[in-house]
Amino acid sequence: MSKPKKVVLAYSGGLDTSIILKWLQEAYGCEVVTFTADLGQGEELEPAREKAEMLGIRPENIFIEDLREEFVRDFVFPMFRANAVYEGLYLLGTSIARPLIAKRLVEIAEETGADAIAHGATGKGNDQVRFELSAYALNPDIKVIAPWREWDLTSRTKLIEWAEAHQVPVPKDKRGEAPFSVDANLLHTSSEGKVLEDPAQEAPDYVYQRTVNPEDAPDAPEYVEIEFERGDAVGINGRRMSPAELLTALNEYGGKHGVGRLDLVEGRYVGMKSRGIYETPGGTILLAAHRGIEQITLDRGAAHLKDELMPRYAELIYNGYWFSPEREMLQAAIDKSQEHVTGTVRVKLYKGSANVVGRSSPLSLYSEQHVTFEDDAGAYDQKDAAGFIKINALRLKLLAMRDRRAR
Amino acid sequence: MSKPKKVVLAYSGGLDTSIILKWLQEAYGCEVVTFTADLGQGEELEPAREKAEMLGIRPENIFIEDLREEFVRDFVFPMFRANAVYEGLYLLGTSIARPLIAKRLVEIAEETGADAIAHGATGKGNDQVRFELSAYALNPDIKVIAPWREWDLTSRTKLIEWAEAHQVPVPKDKRGEAPFSVDANLLHTSSEGKVLEDPAQEAPDYVYQRTVNPEDAPDAPEYVEIEFERGDAVGINGRRMSPAELLTALNEYGGKHGVGRLDLVEGRYVGMKSRGIYETPGGTILLAAHRGIEQITLDRGAAHLKDELMPRYAELIYNGYWFSPEREMLQAAIDKSQEHVTGTVRVKLYKGSANVVGRSSPLSLYSEQHVTFEDDAGAYDQKDAAGFIKINALRLKLLAMRDRRAR
Amino acid sequence: MSKPKKVVLAYSGGLDTSIILKWLQEAYGCEVVTFTADLGQGEELEPAREKAEMLGIRPENIFIEDLREEFVRDFVFPMFRANAVYEGLYLLGTSIARPLIAKRLVEIAEETGADAIAHGATGKGNDQVRFELSAYALNPDIKVIAPWREWDLTSRTKLIEWAEAHQVPVPKDKRGEAPFSVDANLLHTSSEGKVLEDPAQEAPDYVYQRTVNPEDAPDAPEYVEIEFERGDAVGINGRRMSPAELLTALNEYGGKHGVGRLDLVEGRYVGMKSRGIYETPGGTILLAAHRGIEQITLDRGAAHLKDELMPRYAELIYNGYWFSPEREMLQAAIDKSQEHVTGTVRVKLYKGSANVVGRSSPLSLYSEQHVTFEDDAGAYDQKDAAGFIKINALRLKLLAMRDRRAR
Amino acid sequence: MSKPKKVVLAYSGGLDTSIILKWLQEAYGCEVVTFTADLGQGEELEPAREKAEMLGIRPENIFIEDLREEFVRDFVFPMFRANAVYEGLYLLGTSIARPLIAKRLVEIAEETGADAIAHGATGKGNDQVRFELSAYALNPDIKVIAPWREWDLTSRTKLIEWAEAHQVPVPKDKRGEAPFSVDANLLHTSSEGKVLEDPAQEAPDYVYQRTVNPEDAPDAPEYVEIEFERGDAVGINGRRMSPAELLTALNEYGGKHGVGRLDLVEGRYVGMKSRGIYETPGGTILLAAHRGIEQITLDRGAAHLKDELMPRYAELIYNGYWFSPEREMLQAAIDKSQEHVTGTVRVKLYKGSANVVGRSSPLSLYSEQHVTFEDDAGAYDQKDAAGFIKINALRLKLLAMRDRRAR
Repeated sequence: MSKPKKVVLAYSGGLDTSIILKWLQEAYGCEVVTFTADLGQGEELEPAREKAEMLGIRPENIFIEDLREEFVRDFVFPMFRANAVYEGLYLLGTSIARPLIAKRLVEIAEETGADAIAHGATGKGNDQVRFELSAYALNPDIKVIAPWREWDLTSRTKLIEWAEAHQVPVPKDKRGEAPFSVDANLLHTSSEGKVLEDPAQEAPDYVYQRTVNPEDAPDAPEYVEIEFERGDAVGINGRRMSPAELLTALNEYGGKHGVGRLDLVEGRYVGMKSRGIYETPGGTILLAAHRGIEQITLDRGAAHLKDELMPRYAELIYNGYWFSPEREMLQAAIDKSQEHVTGTVRVKLYKGSANVVGRSSPLSLYSEQHVTFEDDAGAYDQKDAAGFIKINALRLKLLAMRDRRAR
Repeated sequence: MSKPKKVVLAYSGGLDTSIILKWLQEAYGCEVVTFTADLGQGEELEPAREKAEMLGIRPENIFIEDLREEFVRDFVFPMFRANAVYEGLYLLGTSIARPLIAKRLVEIAEETGADAIAHGATGKGNDQVRFELSAYALNPDIKVIAPWREWDLTSRTKLIEWAEAHQVPVPKDKRGEAPFSVDANLLHTSSEGKVLEDPAQEAPDYVYQRTVNPEDAPDAPEYVEIEFERGDAVGINGRRMSPAELLTALNEYGGKHGVGRLDLVEGRYVGMKSRGIYETPGGTILLAAHRGIEQITLDRGAAHLKDELMPRYAELIYNGYWFSPEREMLQAAIDKSQEHVTGTVRVKLYKGSANVVGRSSPLSLYSEQHVTFEDDAGAYDQKDAAGFIKINALRLKLLAMRDRRAR
Repeated sequence: MSKPKKVVLAYSGGLDTSIILKWLQEAYGCEVVTFTADLGQGEELEPAREKAEMLGIRPENIFIEDLREEFVRDFVFPMFRANAVYEGLYLLGTSIARPLIAKRLVEIAEETGADAIAHGATGKGNDQVRFELSAYALNPDIKVIAPWREWDLTSRTKLIEWAEAHQVPVPKDKRGEAPFSVDANLLHTSSEGKVLEDPAQEAPDYVYQRTVNPEDAPDAPEYVEIEFERGDAVGINGRRMSPAELLTALNEYGGKHGVGRLDLVEGRYVGMKSRGIYETPGGTILLAAHRGIEQITLDRGAAHLKDELMPRYAELIYNGYWFSPEREMLQAAIDKSQEHVTGTVRVKLYKGSANVVGRSSPLSLYSEQHVTFEDDAGAYDQKDAAGFIKINALRLKLLAMRDRRAR
Repeated sequence: MSKPKKVVLAYSGGLDTSIILKWLQEAYGCEVVTFTADLGQGEELEPAREKAEMLGIRPENIFIEDLREEFVRDFVFPMFRANAVYEGLYLLGTSIARPLIAKRLVEIAEETGADAIAHGATGKGNDQVRFELSAYALNPDIKVIAPWREWDLTSRTKLIEWAEAHQVPVPKDKRGEAPFSVDANLLHTSSEGKVLEDPAQEAPDYVYQRTVNPEDAPDAPEYVEIEFERGDAVGINGRRMSPAELLTALNEYGGKHGVGRLDLVEGRYVGMKSRGIYETPGGTILLAAHRGIEQITLDRGAAHLKDELMPRYAELIYNGYWFSPEREMLQAAIDKSQEHVTGTVRVKLYKGSANVVGRSSPLSLYSEQHVTFEDDAGAYDQKDAAGFIKINALRLKLLAMRDRRAR
C-alpha cells in the first residue's frame, strides 16, 4: 500500500480516536478529515468539532452529520423485515451500523479527495471487518488504516503515555482502565470486555445503561400498539412517526420496562468466542411486533422460507457483508414477502418482557370461518384431509414396505 | 378400505373419546381396544379404565401406560438438541407427543391383532396428520379411523344427543360448550378455539392453566442451574434427575415464575391459520439453557448450520414427519453436533422471563486468552486480520471494479 | 361442490380430451368452452377447432391460442435464470407449462362467465396438482373437474366403448393401447408408462421423438454461440431472436446432435416414484450456456446462494407452486442476481453432449491480472493469504485444543 | 512464529518441491522430512526417494506411502455419497485429496518429532487453504511453512537461477515455462494457468491427459454395470473390487470413452475467478451411477434434503473444511440417508457421455403397482388426490381472497 495522503477518520471525539487522529498525522504525515455521525448513540456531537479543531483539523475537513433517519430507514428497518437474529438471540445492533458509517467515510473521501479512511476498531473484533468489507465494496481503490493493527500501543499505560507525549489531552477519568467497552446507537448498546470476560459470572447491574433492571420496572404492565405498512413500523398508538422517531419512542417504552437485555456468548467472524451484554429495548419490541403482524398477514410458505433464510441473512450482516450480492439477493426475497405485511399489533410490556397479545389487519389471512370449531358453512371439507394425509403418507408407506422386505 | 375388525383407540376417558368408543362399536361393529397414556397431562388414568370397562371393553383390551420417561427421553430431548421452534416461537409441545402415541397405538394393534387404530382429532387440525403419518410410517397396512371426519355429529348438541341415545354418560359440566379446547402433556398445555378465535383480542387470564400470571409471580428472582451432558439436561442445582423428573422440576420453576406463556397465530399444515395459547414453562427454560450451553461448547460452524437446519426440522415435526427419513437425517446431523455440549448453565427466572446469566463447561471453546482486550501473550496476531479482510474483500472489490465499468 | 354450469376444458383435440368434452356434457349437462394452446408441442391446432365444432361446441366457445412467446419469456426463461433441475437432472419441461395453461383456463373462464375448468390429467400424476394449485391460486372460487378422478373408465377398452356409445369418433390408430404416454411443448418431450415402466430396462430407441440417437448424430462437432442479457438468452451466432424463436433454434441444434436425452426415475409429489424419458434438446444447451455465462459474471457469493436455493425452487415448480409467495420470493432473489449476467458463451455440440468451451463478457468478473501465475504487478499480495488462513483456522484450532483436553 | 527445527515437506520429487526442500534447509536451517504419497497420480514414487537422498535427506526421514485405498475409501466415497459438485459442475478432485495429505503430514510430524510442515502450494490458490486448515484442525500447535508466500522467487528465471546456485539439479525440460500447471490423483487431473488463462478460448486438445477426445473415442457404445452397497460402489460387471481398484477400473472405462472432461471458470475461496480444465473419467461415471441407484432406493424427502444440503457440503470441501464440525454434521446426515442405497446401475458410455439406462435393487422403492397406467388393484385411490390438492390449495386460496380484498 502506497502512503496515504489524506485520510477520513471515523472520529467520535473521545480519547481513543483523538489519539488515532494524532497518530495518523505523525505516522503517515497525512492530512486528516474527521467524520462524526449521530447514529443515536446519545452523545453531543459539537464537542467533537472543538476537539478536532484543537487537534489541528481545518474546519472544512470536519464532517458532523445526523444519520439517524437514514440509519433506521435504510438499514435497521430492512433488517427487521427479515426478523434477523444472530445465533438465535442477538439483534445485530452494532453490526448494522457499520456499513452506514463506512459508506459515509467512503463518500466523504470521494468528496474531499482523500485516498484513505481510518477507523478505531481493534484487530480482534468484527467491526474492523464490517468497516473494511463495506468500504472496499463501495470503493475498491480506497486505502484503509486500522491503527490498532499497526501500532505497538498495546497497553493502556503506553497509550496514555503516547497521548501525553503528543499533546493529546487526556481527561482525568480516562486515565485508568474502563471496566468494560461500550458501543451505542439508536438500536442498541453493547458492553463487552474486562468485568464481563468470564461468561460464568452474571453481568453486574451497573453494566446496563439503557434499560432499567426489570425488578425496578413499573409494577403495572403497559400496552403499546404498533402499526405496520409493508413490513415497516410506521406508527405507535395511532400516531404516525418517522423511522428514527419511532425507534426512539420504542426505546423509551422498552427502557422503562427493562425490555431487551441480553447476555450472550457469540462466535466472532474472526474465530474466537466473545461475551457481550446487549440492550436493545425498542428493537426487541419491534421484533416481537413484526413477527406478530406477519402471523396474520404472511402466508405459511413465505413465512417458512423467510425463517430458513434468516440465519444466513443475519450471518451476512454480522460478518460485514451488507454490501454484497448475496445479502441483496436475500433482501430482494424478503422485501418481496412484505408487500402485504400491514396492520396493527398490540404488545404488552412488563418487567423485561414484550409479548404480543393481539394483532389485526385489513389484509389478514386469518379466517375464522375456516378455523372455527363451530359449523363452518362448508368452507372446509374435513374429508379432504383424509386424501391429503393418504397421499402424503404414500412415500412413507412405500418405505415401510421396503424396510419390511429388507429385514 | 375394508371394514376393520378390531380397533385400538387413543382413549382419554373423557366424553369425546367415550363417544368415539361407542360410535366405533356401533358404526363398525368392531372390537375396541383402548389405549390411555400418561404423557404428563396431569390427569389420573385409572378412571379411564373404569369408564372403558363400563362401556364394555374387556379388561385385556384396556391398555394404560406411563410413557413420561420415554416421551421426554426419546422425543422431547432429541428435539431440544435442535433448539426447535416453529415459526420463530412455538416449542412444538403438542406436535412432539403425537408420534409417540401413534407408535404405541400401532404396537398395541400388532400385539392384540387389531387391524385398525382410531383417534379423536378433528379434520381441521394438525393432529390427525401427525397421528396418521406416524402410524402409516410404522405400519403401512394399518387402517386409521378418524370419526370426526366421518360422522355427522357437527355440533355440540348433536354430539350430546348421540351420547345420551347410546348410553354414554354425559357429565353435567360437559353439557355446555367448553370455552376453549385444551391439550396437555409434560412439555406443554395448549388452548385454542372459541374465546380465543379473535386474534386481535388478548387471551383472558383464565385460559392459562399451568403458569401463574407474571404479575402474580414472586417479586424476587430465582436462579436455577441446569447441567447438560452431550446436549441433554441431566441435572438441576446439582441433583441428577431422569428426563421426566427433570422436565417436571423445570415445569414447577417455570410455572411459579410465569415463564413460557405464548400467544401465537400459526400456519397449520392443513392450510389455515389458527390462534393458540401455549404454556411451556419447563421447556422455555430448557431452550434458553440449551442455547446457553451451546454458546460456549459449540463451534460457530456447527452452531450456524444448526440454526439454518432448525426451521426445516421444526416444520417436519409440526407437520407430523417425525418418522421420516429426512427428520432422521437432520437428527443425525444435530446429534453429531452435541457430542461436547456438556456443562452448566445458570438461568434467572423473574416474572415471565428466563434469562441465561452464566455458563461454564470443562469443554468450553471460550478462550479468555484469545478474546481479551488485555495483552494476549501472542495468542492472536492482529495483523492476520488484515489479510483475512483483504482476501475476503477481493471478490467485492472485483465486483466494484466491474460495476464501475458497467456504468 | 355445487354443479358447474359452464366449463373451460383444456382441449388438445385428441381422443382423450374429446371423450372428456363429451363426458362433461353428459355427466354435468354443462356448456363446454374449449381451450387449445400452442405451446410448441408441434401439432396443428386447427383440427382441434373442427373436432370441437363437430362435438357441438359453439364457435365463440372455442379458444385457440399461440402461447409460445409468453411460455418461453414468462415461464421458461425465469426458470432457467435459476439453473433449475429437479432431483439433479430433470429440466422441468412439463412442470413449467402447466401454470400457463391453468392461467389461461382461469382467464377464459372469467371472460366467458364459466364457473369451472377441466383438464385431462390423471389422479396419479403431478399435472393434476400443477393445474389445480395454479387455478386455485388465481381464482379461489373456480371449480375444477378432473374426469379421470371421477369416472369409472379405468381401462382402455371401457374408454373406447364409452366413446363409441357417445358418438366420439375414435381414430383407428387409437383403438389399441399406446405403447407409452407423451407430453410435449417447446421446452421438451416426455414419455412415460407402459414399455417404460421397468426402470431396469433401457428405453427402446423408438421412444425418442425429438432428438436423434447420438450414435446417428453428425460425426463432426458443431459450435453455437449464445448471447445473454441480464440472465436471458437473446441471440444465437450473432442473430437476435425472440424467446420462442431462440428456443426453437436451440431445439434444432440439440435435436440434430442428440443432445438432451434423459432417462430418470423421479419422486412424484403424489408419493410414488415414476420413470420418465425426457428430451430437452434446446433447454440442455441453454442450461449449460447459462451456467457458462454466470461463471464469469456472477460473484461467488451470489452463485453459491443460487445453488443452495435452486433445489427448493425446482421442487416448487415441480410440485405445482409456480403461483405461490415462496416461488415469487425465490424468483426475486434470483432475478436480483442476474443484473449483470450478460455476455456470450460458446458451446460445442457433439453426439449427445453440449459443453461450454468459451465465455466472454464486457461485465466479466474474471481478472487475468489477479489469477495469473505470472507477475501480477501487485494486484494480489500472497502474504494476505497467510492471515486469511490463520483467522479462518482459529476456531478449528480452538476445537482441536478442546478435543485434546476432552481426551 | 518461532523458527521451526524440523519440517515435514509434502514432496513430489519434482523440481519445485526439490527447490523448496533446499530452500527450507537454507532459509530455516532445519532438518527436513519428506513425505511422498501415491494418491493415484500415475507417477513412480521411488525416484522421489533417490532425489531426496541426493538432497541430503536421511533415509529414516523419507516417507513414501501408497494412500490410494484410504483416499478412495475415506475421502472420495463419502463425498460421492453426497453427489457433491462445486458450482454445479466440478467434482472436487483436487479438493478432496488435500485433507488426506495434510493428515499424513501432521501424523508424520508427530511421529518424527517435527514441529512444522511445508507444502508447495502458492499464495493465490485454494490448496494452501486446504492444507493448512486441515493441519491446524488436526494439530493446533503445528507450524506451517508455505515458501511460495515467503520467498521472492517470483519468476521462473529466478527460480531456476536459485536452483542452480544451490545445487538443485534442473532437468532440461523444466528450464522453460510449462504451458500450464497440472495436479493429478486417482479421482482426477486438473490443468490450469498459462494457455488456459483466457476463458473465452477453447482449451487446446493437448491439455487433456487422461481422456481421449470424444471424437476419437470408440464408435460403439459400451455398457458398464456398477453395484452399490449402502451408498458406495463395490463392484463392476459382477466383479467385487476394493475402492481404489474400482475407481481405477472406472477411470479406464471413462478415459477410453472420453468421459469426464470439464472446462470451468470457478470462484476460488481466496476471491478471484480461475479457469480450470478437469478430467474426472471414473468419477463422472460414478456420480451418474450413484444418482441412478438413489433414484430407486432413496425416498423423495431424503433425496430433496440431500440436494439442498449438497452445495454447502461441496463448498466446505472446496474451501478446505473437511475436518470441521459442520462437514461432519452434514456427513452424518448424508450417511444416514445411504443405509438402503444398494443395487445395480447400468451406464452407457459413448463419446463423452455416461448415461444411466437402467437400475435395479432388492430395496427398490419404485412400485410398478402404484405408478402403472393400468389397473392398480386398489393400490392407489385417485380420489385421495382431490383432497390432497384441496388442502394444499387452501392457503393459496386464502391468499387469492386476500389479494382481491387488497385491490
